[in-house]
Amino acid sequence: MKAISSRDNPLVKRLHALASSGRERRILGETLLDGAHLVQAALERSCRLKGLVVSESGVRKAEIADLLGEVGQGLPCHVLPDTLFAHVSPVDTPSGVLAIIDLPAEKPLGTIVDNLVVLDGVQDPGNLGTILRTAAAAGVRHVLLAEGCAGAWSPRVLRAGMGAHFVLEVHERVDLAAWLPGFGGQVLATALSGDACSLYDLDLRAPVAWVFGGEGQGVSPAVLACATRHVLIPMPGAIESLNVGAAVAVCLFEQARQLGSR
Amino acid sequence: MKAISSRDNPLVKRLHALASSGRERRILGETLLDGAHLVQAALERSCRLKGLVVSESGVRKAEIADLLGEVGQGLPCHVLPDTLFAHVSPVDTPSGVLAIIDLPAEKPLGTIVDNLVVLDGVQDPGNLGTILRTAAAAGVRHVLLAEGCAGAWSPRVLRAGMGAHFVLEVHERVDLAAWLPGFGGQVLATALSGDACSLYDLDLRAPVAWVFGGEGQGVSPAVLACATRHVLIPMPGAIESLNVGAAVAVCLFEQARQLGSR
Repeated sequence: MKAISSRDNPLVKRLHALASSGRERRILGETLLDGAHLVQAALERSCRLKGLVVSESGVRKAEIADLLGEVGQGLPCHVLPDTLFAHVSPVDTPSGVLAIIDLPAEKPLGTIVDNLVVLDGVQDPGNLGTILRTAAAAGVRHVLLAEGCAGAWSPRVLRAGMGAHFVLEVHERVDLAAWLPGFGGQVLATALSGDACSLYDLDLRAPVAWVFGGEGQGVSPAVLACATRHVLIPMPGAIESLNVGAAVAVCLFEQARQLGSR
Repeated sequence: MKAISSRDNPLVKRLHALASSGRERRILGETLLDGAHLVQAALERSCRLKGLVVSESGVRKAEIADLLGEVGQGLPCHVLPDTLFAHVSPVDTPSGVLAIIDLPAEKPLGTIVDNLVVLDGVQDPGNLGTILRTAAAAGVRHVLLAEGCAGAWSPRVLRAGMGAHFVLEVHERVDLAAWLPGFGGQVLATALSGDACSLYDLDLRAPVAWVFGGEGQGVSPAVLACATRHVLIPMPGAIESLNVGAAVAVCLFEQARQLGSR
């Protein structure tokens, strides 16, 4: 394991660029996994690591030492002083281990006859990662993101996704208004308006494209126009709105319930 | 509206302390609301503001100008250059307006014959705020937090709660292992273990104390021992875990569905 102590080291510069800039990640074709749990989840799904970077205090943690013992052989491994590690960490509370991976190749978006989650304007990385994790848990395999969503492969989204990225097909920068009209199933968009149908009055057993918008703006009018129905999550409480991640969880698990999940 | 431009100004020091330290918030008995939407939500629920602070660029935003026009009379209002505002802002992307409010007086925790959310070790402010918002939307009025959860009235939790704090009764630093055995209804703790009962096989129409643990550690053994039942959210997908905020949403809205929410 090689020690690095200078900010001018080329690897440190590369890590800092990957941690802080989506543009740099696209140029370099790489991204960062933060934390032993996420790196383990990637390995379990056959994601190839290109290198590991650990902090001096991280090396002394059991789960990171285990990880190094397991995959450290034949893989470039570097150790950084904690302050330098914090400098290249993409998160506020550095976990002590980072892995470099290639960004996945973009696959063409063909016909999908299956449930899918469609997001328009979900900019918060934590929300996006949580939604990917929920989709993967609910058994939804396809996620479509419009231009304007957070980058799916940013380190913060990966961290919140907790491995979901490696079991999903995530399509980014999709022209939803062009793609959705060709979808064969129901297109359901959550809404607060009065003409919407209650979630619990819908038959959700056939394929559904679930459309959700970001906080604030919601779903754009062009995308909303593609919905075959507007759906309302009935809220008996005094507050009549949910975080978008919570709304996705309620909808996808109501569908799983109707599909017989036990 | 008074202009402030120095970091040495006593109000700036007070704001910075409130933004960055739970201990300072308790000593001063105050906290900060960040963003026009949250301040409006507080006003709608009769929360008394003690002062408003806006950034120079914030003043030019319509929603903040409206807020100043509505409540600025008779309230101490200060304007700060954007860099100084960022210095006192409790969030990464300053909204341009902060309100100072008193921390609410702690109420004694008596007998509750109603649904409630019980959290053990939920440390992430965003998760906690989202859970409070979900509880308020689902019609759950009481939330109990064990020692070790994030501070409910921290600016980041308030921001994620989006006004939920003002319709809920939140009890902090509750000795759950002492209180839960006296609860008259079911105590349901989410678990991944095999002896748990499926959420969809439970009758949730009588009062439930829903117990959730934080990421990583989960519910502590002493609290888990108070559960009358362990509950499993069936996950048909390839990933078998949910963000705690998503798990809360699935459980509370399944209960609302069973209670006849339409």
